[in-house]
Amino acid sequence: MTDLNILGISGSLRAGSFNTALLRNAQKHAPAGMTVSRYEGLADLPHYNQDLDNEESRPESVTRLRQAVADADGLLIASPEYNYSIPGGLKDLLDWASRPAADSVLRHKHVAVMSSSPGAFGGVRGLLSLRQMLLATHSHVVAKPEVMVFGVAQRFDDGGNVTDEMTINLLRELLSALHDQIRG
Amino acid sequence: MTDLNILGISGSLRAGSFNTALLRNAQKHAPAGMTVSRYEGLADLPHYNQDLDNEESRPESVTRLRQAVADADGLLIASPEYNYSIPGGLKDLLDWASRPAADSVLRHKHVAVMSSSPGAFGGVRGLLSLRQMLLATHSHVVAKPEVMVFGVAQRFDDGGNVTDEMTINLLRELLSALHDQIRG
Amino acid sequence: MTDLNILGISGSLRAGSFNTALLRNAQKHAPAGMTVSRYEGLADLPHYNQDLDNEESRPESVTRLRQAVADADGLLIASPEYNYSIPGGLKDLLDWASRPAADSVLRHKHVAVMSSSPGAFGGVRGLLSLRQMLLATHSHVVAKPEVMVFGVAQRFDDGGNVTDEMTINLLRELLSALHDQIRG
Amino acid sequence: MTDLNILGISGSLRAGSFNTALLRNAQKHAPAGMTVSRYEGLADLPHYNQDLDNEESRPESVTRLRQAVADADGLLIASPEYNYSIPGGLKDLLDWASRPAADSVLRHKHVAVMSSSPGAFGGVRGLLSLRQMLLATHSHVVAKPEVMVFGVAQRFDDGGNVTDEMTINLLRELLSALHDQIRG
Repeated sequence: MTDLNILGISGSLRAGSFNTALLRNAQKHAPAGMTVSRYEGLADLPHYNQDLDNEESRPESVTRLRQAVADADGLLIASPEYNYSIPGGLKDLLDWASRPAADSVLRHKHVAVMSSSPGAFGGVRGLLSLRQMLLATHSHVVAKPEVMVFGVAQRFDDGGNVTDEMTINLLRELLSALHDQIRG
Repeated sequence: MTDLNILGISGSLRAGSFNTALLRNAQKHAPAGMTVSRYEGLADLPHYNQDLDNEESRPESVTRLRQAVADADGLLIASPEYNYSIPGGLKDLLDWASRPAADSVLRHKHVAVMSSSPGAFGGVRGLLSLRQMLLATHSHVVAKPEVMVFGVAQRFDDGGNVTDEMTINLLRELLSALHDQIRG
Repeated sequence: MTDLNILGISGSLRAGSFNTALLRNAQKHAPAGMTVSRYEGLADLPHYNQDLDNEESRPESVTRLRQAVADADGLLIASPEYNYSIPGGLKDLLDWASRPAADSVLRHKHVAVMSSSPGAFGGVRGLLSLRQMLLATHSHVVAKPEVMVFGVAQRFDDGGNVTDEMTINLLRELLSALHDQIRG
Repeated sequence: MTDLNILGISGSLRAGSFNTALLRNAQKHAPAGMTVSRYEGLADLPHYNQDLDNEESRPESVTRLRQAVADADGLLIASPEYNYSIPGGLKDLLDWASRPAADSVLRHKHVAVMSSSPGAFGGVRGLLSLRQMLLATHSHVVAKPEVMVFGVAQRFDDGGNVTDEMTINLLRELLSALHDQIRG
């Protein structure tokens, strides 16, 4: 059996993003039978505009996004919380990927989600709003564990490796749950 | 006393957007003492990226957005619902306008919100998520009336004028409530 | 194979409740291999109080509730929307059934949800809040179809039978989805 | 000018509730010109049932609740988070107090909200859901500060006094904001 091919998506564009760093650690701690790659096209995606969503006008960045999601066995989304929801860029990604609604690449896609924040609440609100969006897209979201890493700055070494045992275990549990959900 | 200067913001980039059309009708039905202009820079705003949010790198579109919001006595936001929340573009607008957090142009800004949808539910979910975001930004959001226009296509004539009495009245009530809230 | 045993729970205590009536119609339209019974103890449940949740003090109504949920292969919840969420009584039911958290009768329980409302929005907000609660309880909630019946009064005959074809079909689809999810 | 009369409402029925204890501390730290009393009838309120909400059948506990809310200049609600929302009992209180909808005692009532939790997230989700309910009731909810006390057990001495400076300051800021909002 070939490895499950998971597409990792960070909601942050910041070079030093903790969420992007979490994804890199998830790549390292993925269970046997699973490979996590990373989507890096977020900055190039325009805002969703239905007038552009046709064969003549569709940006190539959108076509590439949809193909990448279609090719993946599952998604792993790591997102910061901006203003009690997810960043606009990540929302645009979901908006583009969710069309056409009846037959989108997000439909029936297995998705694991996590958030992290330097503050006390770990992105709880952003993650709830993300789950609500993924109900709309009819994606199959891993319910537990809920991975919301608060005080995230203290959990990394200088090389960008998560050193906090609890966080590593949560990453592993989340990826295992995604694995089992996909394999059924 | 000079007119209140309200900045209208549509969450949709579609040329034939019902929400943009609602804004145009709001301009027409604004009460005495209030002028509604329209923000038209949404397509040019990049996704929020903290690495760009400094004097050297900040896009001019962001500076213009912040100035426009700062100059307004209040905002009138009309948004469709995409995937049970607001569009990514509008979220990016809020994310840019909400920084720096302690002293952003959205802080203590008076805001009225409305949504419309061709479907049955009128953007109810999107509007609730927008209200949650505007709690984060510490904006002063008009509580009632809640304007969520369902079956919106049936409420316009060919010239883009709202013909539905109830919708016109709701627009007027919303703008009056915004007016009174600003004038205190 | 014996029939799946589904426990129907109405969030409303009103004798003429449309949600209770929907449940009765669901009993009638349940697919082959599924029997829907009804929980009728809601009025007797006290508000959740941890001080009562021990062997000496636990009300019998709570013990009966937990047993009824434990015995069911799945739940079908029909709820009105009160103040943009579910009624307090239904919330108390979930609070009692969700303890002890690590090993509650709601954990891994399959649940289908629906709402109805005389108004325009069909209980959309209440149903979203219910889904959020059932994430906390780690229940397995049917994602689609989302059954939110607006203008519900027009969809019944005098005998309490749903006459609206679309509503009947939605009930059937929801129960089939619950069936398939339980049977795996 | 007589003192503002604030009614404190705890969402928890537990005798050792941290939220009830927070309310007692709020009574102690109320600013000049404000007195906080406590509502103690929650356990006696039945679940909301419209069939009981008429002159013949209305429980006396409901009449007393409505009177207490009507008599108050404002409310201070302290609530734990149960299953990512507020407890059923508190929701029943809101449901009873919110009728009749067009002219309820919650309409235009000034309300301050806070939450506390022994865990890491301080009741963030419960408080957001409470704010959504108080939008429905058209109450005037203090926006900031948002008081969500995490790790609450560590912030009290044996006599039930909050010893944590930050928490005391947040209580004071919240009550001052409520005061100023009422006095306009």
